[in-house]
Amino acid sequence: VKVSDVGERAIVEFARRICKSGPRVKVGIGDDAAAVDIDGKYLVATTDMLIARTHFPKGTTAAQMGLKAVVVNLSDIAAMGAEPLGLIFSVGLPRTLSVRFVKDMIRGMDRTARSYGAYVVGGDLDESGEIIIAGAAFGLAKKGRLLTRSGARPGDLIAVTGELGAASAGLKILLDKIPVKGYERLVRAQLEPRARVKEGLALANSGSVTSAIDTTDSLAANAWQVSRTSRVKMIFDHEKLPINHVVKKFSRSRGLNVDDFALFGGEDFELLFTVRLSGWKKVQRASRRLGTAVTLVGRITKGRGVFIKRRGEIKNLPDRGYEHFV
Amino acid sequence: VKVSDVGERAIVEFARRICKSGPRVKVGIGDDAAAVDIDGKYLVATTDMLIARTHFPKGTTAAQMGLKAVVVNLSDIAAMGAEPLGLIFSVGLPRTLSVRFVKDMIRGMDRTARSYGAYVVGGDLDESGEIIIAGAAFGLAKKGRLLTRSGARPGDLIAVTGELGAASAGLKILLDKIPVKGYERLVRAQLEPRARVKEGLALANSGSVTSAIDTTDSLAANAWQVSRTSRVKMIFDHEKLPINHVVKKFSRSRGLNVDDFALFGGEDFELLFTVRLSGWKKVQRASRRLGTAVTLVGRITKGRGVFIKRRGEIKNLPDRGYEHFV
Repeated sequence: VKVSDVGERAIVEFARRICKSGPRVKVGIGDDAAAVDIDGKYLVATTDMLIARTHFPKGTTAAQMGLKAVVVNLSDIAAMGAEPLGLIFSVGLPRTLSVRFVKDMIRGMDRTARSYGAYVVGGDLDESGEIIIAGAAFGLAKKGRLLTRSGARPGDLIAVTGELGAASAGLKILLDKIPVKGYERLVRAQLEPRARVKEGLALANSGSVTSAIDTTDSLAANAWQVSRTSRVKMIFDHEKLPINHVVKKFSRSRGLNVDDFALFGGEDFELLFTVRLSGWKKVQRASRRLGTAVTLVGRITKGRGVFIKRRGEIKNLPDRGYEHFV
Repeated sequence: VKVSDVGERAIVEFARRICKSGPRVKVGIGDDAAAVDIDGKYLVATTDMLIARTHFPKGTTAAQMGLKAVVVNLSDIAAMGAEPLGLIFSVGLPRTLSVRFVKDMIRGMDRTARSYGAYVVGGDLDESGEIIIAGAAFGLAKKGRLLTRSGARPGDLIAVTGELGAASAGLKILLDKIPVKGYERLVRAQLEPRARVKEGLALANSGSVTSAIDTTDSLAANAWQVSRTSRVKMIFDHEKLPINHVVKKFSRSRGLNVDDFALFGGEDFELLFTVRLSGWKKVQRASRRLGTAVTLVGRITKGRGVFIKRRGEIKNLPDRGYEHFV
């Protein structure tokens, strides 16, 4: 049986079963990040690897590679409701790469990390056939304020920060070499994403958010992860989804299905979260203070699975999105 | 100018200059691990990437790959005098790799981590052309007890844990396909190294150790790093070096220079440390309690550079060892 036969999720599940947990391990394998009890607080840690061939569309600049390596890791810290502290990077570089490129990449890392109040504090360097950036980020979460994938409960509301679909539409434009004119925002969302760090902290501090995950794989695939881990049913309302309006325009003009970006496209790095009914007003106030939109997109009920309501009909939402073994 | 023209050390130095430090960053780029102040303690974090082609000689088993990925990271935590807590891994796998292999690798990680009181708590999975294991480890160090590369002072003694040369002699045996009979210990030192975690903690707790580094690159290369960072002169005594006796036998029987393993061979993962004269007895007692040999191998004086005394003559010790851009 080969790795490609079973896929990424099955291997993560093997790892979750094999790796024993320790007395201080609050959250182990299978969430956005791990959380370890360090007396009074949780140390939150995550790692994400980017490999040039798979993760960086042609034309990605060195600085954008550095930026993205920081953002993918901080997004996981954000989804735990933690404050990021530092980042470390293991970098594999081809011998023939220019030193200028490497410096630009490091500058991109440094600038991006600091824009979130975090710092690049260490690394390791190796020779490799293509550019590989394996990052790890760590931060701190307050006890009782940690956001996981497992806390959603029947009666909770489902909400999402920002807008959906821009990053994957941008990727389509780059991969299919579609003229960028008019779609600059989409391409930028793909090449220079942002992590919802302040938002994650605010959601955690509200005390009313019951679960959170970042939309790395896709709204649908990440919702399925929450549904499985929390053992609840999620029902989305298609009309309410905050789909980026440039994505709508792009889809219309090209005869593409907007859902392929908004529901099944990855890398928006928004926070998909659930909140107690009684806490929604508080979350709205916090989001206004930060100037970040939060939109109610559905609700949690008893049961299992992820569904979507569209024109009065409720249908199953396929568990589909970016996976690294396809 | 290409990456291969300037080499690993120059790029690390660029990164050290580019990446700004933050108020909580006690140790940034350029030591065995980073240390960040988290109120009362230091959070210590490190990352090390292993790429199959470069790091795993043919015949390395899946479990040994997992073991080594843990050990290289915990060795850096040990060299800071920190207590390890957790490990996270970004793993790149070829699609055609067998699932059994992957499970064995994860089992090797889990078992090894737990043997040091640490846990595998998270990871990321990607498709790649060859096996890549980028690990990160984190732990805690007490304030005032952190071991860095920069604290060596004139008058200090230089010491090393364990023995020298076995891992690189083992690598030579594997690469040159030399019959293993009689040299099993050397091959094992290469494929199943140990990290000096308890020893690092004991050295830190002694309060007399002024600097430490793990011998990943080679005794010579790692000594040069201490000399440069601490701005001191290091003088080793060749007669006193605890060279593994099987390495001596192997070198004699093959007409090889034992120094190529003991001084310039990497991956022994011993701790090379400096200690105040007044603290040596205390360090000896601690090492006896742990059952790990510590050997005095030289002394620190004013000046710069690394030297070695042999048959009454003091010569410059070349800054040579494993580097990943050669």
